[in-house]
Amino acid sequence: MSQTFDPASLKFDSRGLIPAIAQDHETGEVLMMAWMNAEAVARTLREGRVTYWSRSRQAFWRKGDESGHVQRLVEMRIDCDRDCLLLRVAQTGPACHTNRRSCFFTVLRDGVEVIDSAPLDS
Amino acid sequence: MSQTFDPASLKFDSRGLIPAIAQDHETGEVLMMAWMNAEAVARTLREGRVTYWSRSRQAFWRKGDESGHVQRLVEMRIDCDRDCLLLRVAQTGPACHTNRRSCFFTVLRDGVEVIDSAPLDS
Repeated sequence: MSQTFDPASLKFDSRGLIPAIAQDHETGEVLMMAWMNAEAVARTLREGRVTYWSRSRQAFWRKGDESGHVQRLVEMRIDCDRDCLLLRVAQTGPACHTNRRSCFFTVLRDGVEVIDSAPLDS
Repeated sequence: MSQTFDPASLKFDSRGLIPAIAQDHETGEVLMMAWMNAEAVARTLREGRVTYWSRSRQAFWRKGDESGHVQRLVEMRIDCDRDCLLLRVAQTGPACHTNRRSCFFTVLRDGVEVIDSAPLDS
């Protein structure tokens, strides 16, 4: 018999958080990494909208509530150690606060940091 | 003038670690997430072979040294907050210790955990 998933069954760190990687469900692009607590995981599954826990603001952060850059959850995956989540999402607009599609816009080339994408038009 | 990248310029957590996401450079599949300290970042860049810091063993872990499942670094990316790395890698064989290509083989479907890939033949 299969059991209903319980967010508390995940492994959280000493702050009660688990890292969550957001990936574009169509292109496979890795968009960002942020953190969730058990309640953020539960809300994300319940609403189908990705909610993180903001470590800086110590508050829930439902992605897009202020920016409009919503992440719709397509699929949630759990890693073998149950201490990391992979969110396959439909991302509206940029995922990054710099207005770029992905937060990983800095790449090392020959030992030097290169910014390889520009902010999207807003 | 561009500056040579210094791993110490990244933001490490209170344990001196930064999360590193490994992604297949060809398919875009997210393979695993593990941790690096500054020296692991430096070794990875110097050798072109991915080296993590094992939290459980408290030791450097050059991926594949024991298993043969080497990760060759194709590209290292840094996120906007400088507190997460994205490694685009060429993965030999499975990335996961369960002998699966990716560690994220558990997916939530209708609130139930489903394992959607089998261990590779070894």
